[in-house]
Amino acid sequence: MEKREIIIDLLGSDQGPEEMLEGARLVLEEFPSIRVALAGPRALIEAAGLPEDRCRILEADKTVTNLDNPVEAFYRKEPVSVFKALEEASRSDDVIGVINAGNTGALFAGAIRFLLADKAVRPCIAAILPTTQGGFTCLVDTGASIDCGPAQLVEFAHLGSDFMRTLYKLESPRVGLLSNGAEPTKGNKLVKEAHALLAREEGINFVGNIEGNKTLSGLCDVLVCDGFAGNQVLKNSEGMAVNLITEIVKYGKTHNIPAVQEIVGYLMSRFDFASLGAGVMLGTRKVVLKCRGSSNRTAIKNAARLLVNLAENKTLYE
Amino acid sequence: MEKREIIIDLLGSDQGPEEMLEGARLVLEEFPSIRVALAGPRALIEAAGLPEDRCRILEADKTVTNLDNPVEAFYRKEPVSVFKALEEASRSDDVIGVINAGNTGALFAGAIRFLLADKAVRPCIAAILPTTQGGFTCLVDTGASIDCGPAQLVEFAHLGSDFMRTLYKLESPRVGLLSNGAEPTKGNKLVKEAHALLAREEGINFVGNIEGNKTLSGLCDVLVCDGFAGNQVLKNSEGMAVNLITEIVKYGKTHNIPAVQEIVGYLMSRFDFASLGAGVMLGTRKVVLKCRGSSNRTAIKNAARLLVNLAENKTLYE
Repeated sequence: MEKREIIIDLLGSDQGPEEMLEGARLVLEEFPSIRVALAGPRALIEAAGLPEDRCRILEADKTVTNLDNPVEAFYRKEPVSVFKALEEASRSDDVIGVINAGNTGALFAGAIRFLLADKAVRPCIAAILPTTQGGFTCLVDTGASIDCGPAQLVEFAHLGSDFMRTLYKLESPRVGLLSNGAEPTKGNKLVKEAHALLAREEGINFVGNIEGNKTLSGLCDVLVCDGFAGNQVLKNSEGMAVNLITEIVKYGKTHNIPAVQEIVGYLMSRFDFASLGAGVMLGTRKVVLKCRGSSNRTAIKNAARLLVNLAENKTLYE
Repeated sequence: MEKREIIIDLLGSDQGPEEMLEGARLVLEEFPSIRVALAGPRALIEAAGLPEDRCRILEADKTVTNLDNPVEAFYRKEPVSVFKALEEASRSDDVIGVINAGNTGALFAGAIRFLLADKAVRPCIAAILPTTQGGFTCLVDTGASIDCGPAQLVEFAHLGSDFMRTLYKLESPRVGLLSNGAEPTKGNKLVKEAHALLAREEGINFVGNIEGNKTLSGLCDVLVCDGFAGNQVLKNSEGMAVNLITEIVKYGKTHNIPAVQEIVGYLMSRFDFASLGAGVMLGTRKVVLKCRGSSNRTAIKNAARLLVNLAENKTLYE
């Protein structure tokens, strides 16, 4: 591994900058060869007492909330932490990537401005989901581009295929298209048009439509959809897993079944919520991880582990 | 209960007309006061040897497959079983409703032609989903109208509210809008426009956007979305439940945990797949149930039970 610094944007998460700072502390403890650069208010960072030789400060005290217009925020030219983080990532060779748990629109606008890869039209955010076959499917897009055209879905197919080729050493990743039926005639207007384009696209191993109950079945390595649908798949899968696990725990308590703890532990490892928890931006020159707004310190540490892994495999657009 | 006949379309399901016939046999056994009318080939029905005084034959030997254009099929004027079933439902006062497990487009086209309620613009298909609070949410639309405009989503809100008012005696059903974020600014173009319309619509108790991980949380009584998104929610929820239950069973076997059987039984009752299995058409003069293509005889019997329940509560547009 050559690159050694991870940039963490402290602002904009639901749990506040203190929790993000504790995440940074865990990162430094867990990865002795890694340094962090923290984008946020100087006083707050200094008060945390992190080791000065392994912690740079990127001073910025503004953020973009879910109620702001992210593009307007960009042109206000204030010291916004997410823009500061992304700009620094574009400048410094030593940076592996950026971790953020704030507003997606702002992250996206900043990534286009500072980190867009040469061959990409615009970035997208993928989730790497565990399948029932034991492998992984790259779901793209998960919410960065809510309204898409068919050509964008083809772009997602390329970005997802590149990612799976590089990270999982797949020679010819199978690309599926999320639809409401397996037949080529099924789909909304967008999906039908994208189907026709994907079927004749060079460099794409298109395997056809995938239904909503087969998203985690390992039928494809890349699952393409617009950001609205992808957001539903991602959140619904997680929500259902949480619902079922909650019910199991409740039942185990009221019926005094000690084995429940073991079963739940297994399910949590099998449907790995940490890997569901962070989206990977594709189409950028540095790796950008979009963590859930609700991320706690452990989620931040897990995101850092993903970055370290990616860096060690020398993957993505670096 | 006044009405006593249930019409079953035998053709178009994945498991073939023989399985549908066995479903009809179960219905007659389970509900002694109910009669059936079966739409399908006469020879096949006669060979099943069902009691003649409780079984009418609606002769039709054609069906519409997922590869046919349903509207074209309609104008071919052949004896198509689903159209025969719906036409008969519109004619006979004694009919409670129709059960079908074939092509959705054909069912929809036939329902518009023969059974459209006076106040409805076009029907939609709802699913009644069990929530983690112990109640039910009416998800509408689940796949009948794949491409929708914002006014259609408002129509779904009215149809779903009417249904929940009638069936669950809710005075003012809470209507949520499926989106990619809770804030009113979140959503694709369709959802943002529908949000503005729903917020000022009379007779609708609009509670705002609902995210994909909260679809079964009981935050609303009616969850409105276009048919493409609804199909994802429905199939994804089911797929995840199946995935987790499959993993629990596997783990229980390899680790020899007998309690697993009990836990799985509880989960199956809690997230009731039978009720997930049938869609209810809203906006029609008779109740039409759209069963999964893969429905077996038990699923058909369960659908009949739902019809009997509905008839006993004197609900829907009758």
